[in-house]
Amino acid sequence: MANKKKSNNNYSWHSQRFNQSIAQQTLQYTASIKFDKRLALFDIEASIAHANMLFAKKIITKKDLDLIKSALIEIKDEIIEAKFNWRIEDEDVHMNIERRLIEKIGDSGRKLHTARSRNDQVATDVRLYLRYEIDEITMQLIQLHITIIRTAEKNINTIMPGYTHMQIAQPITFAHYLMAYFEMFYRDHQRLADIRKRVYVLPLGAAALAGSSFNIDRKMIMKELNFSNLSENSLDAVSDRDFIIEFLSAIAITSMHISRLAEELILWMNPQFGYISLPDKFCTTSSIMPQKKNPDILELARAKTGRIYGNLLALLTIMKSQPLAYNSDNQEDKESLFDSIDTIKNTLSIITKIIKEVTPNKQKMLSALKFGHAGATDLADFLVTKGIAFRKAHGMVAQAVNFSEKIGKDLSNLTSQELKKAIPDLKKDLATAIEKIKIENVVNARNNIGGTSPNQVKHAIARAKKRIANK
Amino acid sequence: MANKKKSNNNYSWHSQRFNQSIAQQTLQYTASIKFDKRLALFDIEASIAHANMLFAKKIITKKDLDLIKSALIEIKDEIIEAKFNWRIEDEDVHMNIERRLIEKIGDSGRKLHTARSRNDQVATDVRLYLRYEIDEITMQLIQLHITIIRTAEKNINTIMPGYTHMQIAQPITFAHYLMAYFEMFYRDHQRLADIRKRVYVLPLGAAALAGSSFNIDRKMIMKELNFSNLSENSLDAVSDRDFIIEFLSAIAITSMHISRLAEELILWMNPQFGYISLPDKFCTTSSIMPQKKNPDILELARAKTGRIYGNLLALLTIMKSQPLAYNSDNQEDKESLFDSIDTIKNTLSIITKIIKEVTPNKQKMLSALKFGHAGATDLADFLVTKGIAFRKAHGMVAQAVNFSEKIGKDLSNLTSQELKKAIPDLKKDLATAIEKIKIENVVNARNNIGGTSPNQVKHAIARAKKRIANK
Amino acid sequence: MANKKKSNNNYSWHSQRFNQSIAQQTLQYTASIKFDKRLALFDIEASIAHANMLFAKKIITKKDLDLIKSALIEIKDEIIEAKFNWRIEDEDVHMNIERRLIEKIGDSGRKLHTARSRNDQVATDVRLYLRYEIDEITMQLIQLHITIIRTAEKNINTIMPGYTHMQIAQPITFAHYLMAYFEMFYRDHQRLADIRKRVYVLPLGAAALAGSSFNIDRKMIMKELNFSNLSENSLDAVSDRDFIIEFLSAIAITSMHISRLAEELILWMNPQFGYISLPDKFCTTSSIMPQKKNPDILELARAKTGRIYGNLLALLTIMKSQPLAYNSDNQEDKESLFDSIDTIKNTLSIITKIIKEVTPNKQKMLSALKFGHAGATDLADFLVTKGIAFRKAHGMVAQAVNFSEKIGKDLSNLTSQELKKAIPDLKKDLATAIEKIKIENVVNARNNIGGTSPNQVKHAIARAKKRIANK
Amino acid sequence: MANKKKSNNNYSWHSQRFNQSIAQQTLQYTASIKFDKRLALFDIEASIAHANMLFAKKIITKKDLDLIKSALIEIKDEIIEAKFNWRIEDEDVHMNIERRLIEKIGDSGRKLHTARSRNDQVATDVRLYLRYEIDEITMQLIQLHITIIRTAEKNINTIMPGYTHMQIAQPITFAHYLMAYFEMFYRDHQRLADIRKRVYVLPLGAAALAGSSFNIDRKMIMKELNFSNLSENSLDAVSDRDFIIEFLSAIAITSMHISRLAEELILWMNPQFGYISLPDKFCTTSSIMPQKKNPDILELARAKTGRIYGNLLALLTIMKSQPLAYNSDNQEDKESLFDSIDTIKNTLSIITKIIKEVTPNKQKMLSALKFGHAGATDLADFLVTKGIAFRKAHGMVAQAVNFSEKIGKDLSNLTSQELKKAIPDLKKDLATAIEKIKIENVVNARNNIGGTSPNQVKHAIARAKKRIANK
Repeated sequence: MANKKKSNNNYSWHSQRFNQSIAQQTLQYTASIKFDKRLALFDIEASIAHANMLFAKKIITKKDLDLIKSALIEIKDEIIEAKFNWRIEDEDVHMNIERRLIEKIGDSGRKLHTARSRNDQVATDVRLYLRYEIDEITMQLIQLHITIIRTAEKNINTIMPGYTHMQIAQPITFAHYLMAYFEMFYRDHQRLADIRKRVYVLPLGAAALAGSSFNIDRKMIMKELNFSNLSENSLDAVSDRDFIIEFLSAIAITSMHISRLAEELILWMNPQFGYISLPDKFCTTSSIMPQKKNPDILELARAKTGRIYGNLLALLTIMKSQPLAYNSDNQEDKESLFDSIDTIKNTLSIITKIIKEVTPNKQKMLSALKFGHAGATDLADFLVTKGIAFRKAHGMVAQAVNFSEKIGKDLSNLTSQELKKAIPDLKKDLATAIEKIKIENVVNARNNIGGTSPNQVKHAIARAKKRIANK
Repeated sequence: MANKKKSNNNYSWHSQRFNQSIAQQTLQYTASIKFDKRLALFDIEASIAHANMLFAKKIITKKDLDLIKSALIEIKDEIIEAKFNWRIEDEDVHMNIERRLIEKIGDSGRKLHTARSRNDQVATDVRLYLRYEIDEITMQLIQLHITIIRTAEKNINTIMPGYTHMQIAQPITFAHYLMAYFEMFYRDHQRLADIRKRVYVLPLGAAALAGSSFNIDRKMIMKELNFSNLSENSLDAVSDRDFIIEFLSAIAITSMHISRLAEELILWMNPQFGYISLPDKFCTTSSIMPQKKNPDILELARAKTGRIYGNLLALLTIMKSQPLAYNSDNQEDKESLFDSIDTIKNTLSIITKIIKEVTPNKQKMLSALKFGHAGATDLADFLVTKGIAFRKAHGMVAQAVNFSEKIGKDLSNLTSQELKKAIPDLKKDLATAIEKIKIENVVNARNNIGGTSPNQVKHAIARAKKRIANK
Repeated sequence: MANKKKSNNNYSWHSQRFNQSIAQQTLQYTASIKFDKRLALFDIEASIAHANMLFAKKIITKKDLDLIKSALIEIKDEIIEAKFNWRIEDEDVHMNIERRLIEKIGDSGRKLHTARSRNDQVATDVRLYLRYEIDEITMQLIQLHITIIRTAEKNINTIMPGYTHMQIAQPITFAHYLMAYFEMFYRDHQRLADIRKRVYVLPLGAAALAGSSFNIDRKMIMKELNFSNLSENSLDAVSDRDFIIEFLSAIAITSMHISRLAEELILWMNPQFGYISLPDKFCTTSSIMPQKKNPDILELARAKTGRIYGNLLALLTIMKSQPLAYNSDNQEDKESLFDSIDTIKNTLSIITKIIKEVTPNKQKMLSALKFGHAGATDLADFLVTKGIAFRKAHGMVAQAVNFSEKIGKDLSNLTSQELKKAIPDLKKDLATAIEKIKIENVVNARNNIGGTSPNQVKHAIARAKKRIANK
Repeated sequence: MANKKKSNNNYSWHSQRFNQSIAQQTLQYTASIKFDKRLALFDIEASIAHANMLFAKKIITKKDLDLIKSALIEIKDEIIEAKFNWRIEDEDVHMNIERRLIEKIGDSGRKLHTARSRNDQVATDVRLYLRYEIDEITMQLIQLHITIIRTAEKNINTIMPGYTHMQIAQPITFAHYLMAYFEMFYRDHQRLADIRKRVYVLPLGAAALAGSSFNIDRKMIMKELNFSNLSENSLDAVSDRDFIIEFLSAIAITSMHISRLAEELILWMNPQFGYISLPDKFCTTSSIMPQKKNPDILELARAKTGRIYGNLLALLTIMKSQPLAYNSDNQEDKESLFDSIDTIKNTLSIITKIIKEVTPNKQKMLSALKFGHAGATDLADFLVTKGIAFRKAHGMVAQAVNFSEKIGKDLSNLTSQELKKAIPDLKKDLATAIEKIKIENVVNARNNIGGTSPNQVKHAIARAKKRIANK
């Protein structure tokens, strides 16, 4: 480029202020360029919008603008092509890019930082970045929604034990089970949508803390960057990290959901359950025990909840009792945010693949229901229809369970004769009772909205599809 | 009451199942009645809606319904009048009320639990309770909004130092400062509104985990209880505690905001600042140093952030890798929730009173600006308008600051002659430059949306009023 | 008492300073008497030691001392007998007791607070209290150690599957399993012993923050209260809460251990495992499913980890960036501390009872080992003794496992012929190989220190007994 | 090397077990080599000790041993010289090194893993690593101790305000203030010493979970690696992460101490205090406000408490309710540990430099004491020596403070006449009283152990030196 100008020697805004050169260690400790270069493309995007506005408001000339924009686009390419020379002496992503800009175009480059500060600049960059990542994660959640629905659709009649307190409670279907996770991940999706509106708020123009003395047009930048609102208060604009905490909280809940799913899938791969199989590619073996097929991914996915919770608490701790407006404490927001984003994206991706390929072992699921008296509630419910108050019915069934255990049978396998002995008050309708507590009938009987009957689960799936489509 | 019937002896659904009496210690450890009685009125509200539905669906008779409803209303009165006999043997709020119901009306009372379980019942109660408390806290936030606005309106021209890095940066107004907290608390308000929609989801009808086998009408209950949606999956309905975590996260952010405000007010009551005064009634003195006027409330408000963060972590920990559907782990959700609610309500109430009565010491605020070179940015901005690129202007002002420090003056007090020496390149317009960096002019110059100029703050206050009104 | 003197009206040190009466709400918000009365007896103990010193140093007279001591003993009785009138207007436990003291003995009572402040007083009280509770918890841990050892002694030959990644890995014994928890709880015990030495440091004499101007004798008090050291710096003495955080961290680890144990016992009560049985008295049933036997206690014990982690975070948050010396933030240390102490004591007590009464279902444990190829490592080890490098042996056994799975057998049930087919390179010693991988032999072969063989576990138990005895 | 043998093609113990190739994403997700290569030298150290033992117990030959050792030393050099080819396909540090070993020496290399598992291997490596880092951090703490003492020694007579509730309470000395931090950091030192003994426990020999079937000699390895104890239970040995949590807790407290110090230094650099100056090299300036001198390092040091707390909570979360023995969850322990170690080391290093170079502005410190009535306690104490009960004296001084404020003077500047008016009951000894409350006398009067008088601080420093020397 013609007007590229090496001005490296002249460029050092630190040296003006301080007589001592900045100690290397201070630099190492305070420089953020190691991690904040992730924001580079967003920084350039914001800078271009800022430059356009500076020109529109006649703060810079057309020539300045053209130079700035073409140089920033060159820099963008250098970054993408990994040719950019990141320098720790320039501390952060903003100063690295500005230094390069000035190298390229000299004084025109020195004008870009007019009417802004790194305080509002970094707040803008992080919001642009997070907006992008929220969209990415949302797309991943939608993939997961669809995958859950597809796997559920194949398992509407796959009966398995439903647990409370890790004790067999009532039979459910595998589809119904999977759709419980649909609900969880769908709420995660909703939460991200709610947060988005508080992310789409433009801080640029707040300058260091009090606003700019130039006659700027913040709305113009807002429109160009596709934000929905302007920050209403400059002190708040540069010191606000709520949107990061909100996001980290939402991700913590998503991660918690994954930990629950992982916990269960791990248990179910255990030979004592054996309810599911995973393809070998999702497992590893042992360095000493060649027979092992370990669900490492699921264990890691469960464990990564720890770091995601930790990242949330890091940010909460950082912001606690921090005085206004901007302090360097806020620079510590990024690594926690980046780590949670990377972690959840990797985890969602691999969990989605697992849900796609998990195979239920239907026989094992069903045979587990031979124990556990999973029809007990329905026997009580049946007694209620015969006019017995529920609490009494509950007591009578408890006796029947005791009886069954004594003779070593599951409730659902009692003969009429045995049932009669078990519940002496139940004198007729024994055959009906026995029919009612057959596992399949128990499942089908839960035929209200949200219930486990195949009929309801089909409806639930249909509604789920609509909810995704409407998003 | 006529049909009141003491059936205490017969009523013990535990004894049916277990041959051993429940050990007292187990009871002490597992009973939740010590804390969950706070849910009592919501439990009754939900039970009445459930009973109405049971009758509508012909599961109980009109006579049963009438008995249940009038007895529940009596029980409600007993609870309100503190005449209710809470018994630890009945474990929780649900069983205490049901036991009393059966004492009063016998078998009709034993029918109430038909088609529900404590799992969906408690989830419903907690949602009704939290809905109520979210509304209470929202009302408190609105009071706080209004109080901030009123105090701001009185201080639109009260100039004070604005800080970054706890160093004087630029002058701001006290109104602008207060309105930064308006923005924070307004986001808190928004977040509660977002959460509300995920609280207003009815779990009742999920029964223990898989739905009910009775032909129930969940929508009827939903309407009667004024919920917006039905839970779509019974497993999720009984195991979901997302809404509590979301709420605790939102409250954690609110508490963090309070900690920042408290930190600053504490600092500003310090004699070195002396920016504000608080009435004696908000302070205490020392047991050994009679001269002290300690901002105890603000310190406690700051510290209570600790327990509120802790409560959030408690819930996240409890839910981590918990298998579906219901486990007693979930019983541990309540004390953390209740504690955060009590803490934030007490704190918001007292902080609002403080904001109402805080008095700025205008003279101290203004005289603090005699040091700190708070006009430096504006001097650089002025140089920019004279055609100097911002980065160069920045460097020139840095030299001027060094010059000022050497001669022991603040930048804003330099004479034309001194300014000339400080910035040799600045040959004319010295008088204009000196005018530009007068504190008052610096404030007025920040006249873009969100800026600290009185003009902008007036607009911001006007918009803030509208935002509250539209909520 | 003769010299009891009602001086209630005169006694109000607040009113001297402040013209306004303390607002009721401030009092409610700042008063700690609701919870800190738990420290009452320790407060009296410290006051008596303080009074003895004041007399020894001639700061008060013999008559003052006698009056103070006898009145404090009376007050102690009033507190123990629940006759003491705790008043919120007196804010905290110290002022309540002092007020009562002055009621009883007038001016002599007014002298007690000479040369101390509430800042050093409360720090002393909390240390006395925590010292007591550490001893209580240590005694509970020793009970638990003994209980684990006794249950282990009965199960030295009880073979069960050992898991890694929740997959069957190698057979272990139930005794060996239990002794793993002995190690964990023994470390908890050690940690408390380490913390104790930092708790036994006397802050009294630090006064408000800078030490007392009276000629006092801190060592005398130290000896009387049985502390080991004096605090070396008065600023630190009143602001240090490290010892509480240390304790809460140690308790968090203990709680984590309990959560692991609880998790496993819950799993093993699940019918798919069925490895253990618990007496009914430790379980509850369901309000809707009469067949259930729910391990509520274990679930609650697992969940209470949440509040214990939360309490630790609360204290860490409170102390973060708190300036010296004393701030009221520190008053918020108590409820978290008390809650963790109560929670861990109740939980340790009930977990100890459970360990005492847990019954292993030996048949279920053993038959689970029919699947999982738990002898695989030993087959590889055997091949190594035949000169095959371990990594190669590992690969050969992996093939054998694949072979076994194809013919639907566990490795340990292969015939010589089958083993030959499974590992073609293994031409002789087939009978020895088959012997080596029999479950019982696999257990016995792990005969190094810390290994699972009955021989080693016996030694480990013997050493464990000695370790407890030496403590 | 002569016996170097490329066996890359043959070496892939995964492929034996699984028919499908390991998906690349699984590998990315589960491989730990990105971060655990930090353990490499400790892994080699442990492997050499293991090999020596295998030979001593005749499990490998002398030739095997020699080959293994010389190859491991070569590998060590390759790693140190950054020539080692880390491969993600080899998953972790152990397998990378073993793969290279086998490349070099073939079958002898395949024998190294005999009688161990990655489960006990990684536990050993992390303990060796943490032992090293604890020593490093201890050395840093000692440097900090010495630095604090030296700076204190220069400031024994530097009087400054002491604060409680951020209100001026009593005068202290800067030396006394600094020595408060000595106490804190000295406790941190003690805690690391306590933890060390639980780190020096050798898990090697626990193998996968149940011990090894080979006749090994664990004590031999223990001695060679300089550990103090053998793990007593193999299940515990591979699953225990207590020592990491303990360490992270200790570091969290250290970090909290740093946050308190940083908070105060930041405040004191604020122009309203101006108590201290820091050399420019520890500060940065602003991108928009050229006059700023920002204490970035201190702000970052304060903020890094967040990540250190977060890392502790990450580990606590990971271990919560994790079943025995080893799960891949435990692999997630490392990044949190490494991050806390790096963070605390960098922070301690730079904080030590700051303490060395911090300059108190004695004039500013002293003149701040012209306000705040810092002699009030001593006036009360003086009245006590005149026979007035402390509580009454306290009340009288409160009136004197009110009087002083009315006439706009600090208590310490009252004339005899004014003091007489302020405390009408004080009729004589006015001159003595006035003498007592002079700031310097107030400082000198605090002459008990731990007090702020120069005499006491000298003694405290002398004792501090001895305590360091004895460590």
